Amino acid sequence: MYSATDPLSTTLSALADPTRRALLARLSQGEATVNELAEPFDITLQAVSRHLKVLETAGLISRGREAQWRPCKLETARLQEVDGWLARYRMFWEGSFDKMGAYLDEITKGDDNGSKN
Amino acid sequence: MYSATDPLSTTLSALADPTRRALLARLSQGEATVNELAEPFDITLQAVSRHLKVLETAGLISRGREAQWRPCKLETARLQEVDGWLARYRMFWEGSFDKMGAYLDEITKGDDNGSKN
Repeated sequence: MYSATDPLSTTLSALADPTRRALLARLSQGEATVNELAEPFDITLQAVSRHLKVLETAGLISRGREAQWRPCKLETARLQEVDGWLARYRMFWEGSFDKMGAYLDEITKGDDNGSKN
Repeated sequence: MYSATDPLSTTLSALADPTRRALLARLSQGEATVNELAEPFDITLQAVSRHLKVLETAGLISRGREAQWRPCKLETARLQEVDGWLARYRMFWEGSFDKMGAYLDEITKGDDNGSKN
């Protein structure tokens, strides 16, 4: 599963797990230790550590140097790459909003005409 | 690999492959048949079909009903979900741009002071 050599595939693969995404969401609020991160989850500390290792290998988090605490920190560069990859597709739904805007303009115009009668 | 039950994990897992992302990029330019999609790739038609099946299962593409052609079509709803999920993280790099803006303002202000001396 993690044999992909391109960084974007590694990132997307690491993100394809609800627990790992929940760990990132927690870290978006600030650094945390493994124990703090594990607390809300109904899984073993070992399982949390495995998930953190996947996130770290993908560059989505970094770990502090202090041997005892090693707080985890969100690293956003890889997420920004996903955002950049999505850019070419964003026009599809932003385009849809434009069409919706034009449609609403059309309706409003119709209402204006109606009020003049 | 595709045992994940939540749609976002299925989407991200399907996107975690450079060939599948290339197939989506081609489809962002318009519908295409399997043969047309396979042409630029140095892999078998069977391998392309397997990738398309993964994309279809994830809801990232749909297939036409005509038995002979079955053109593939990009479906963007799942990508929009990824975009929505990224929203909470976007402030991190958009925040960085804000800081960069403040920094550039500071430099410009310095220049203005300089020109007054």
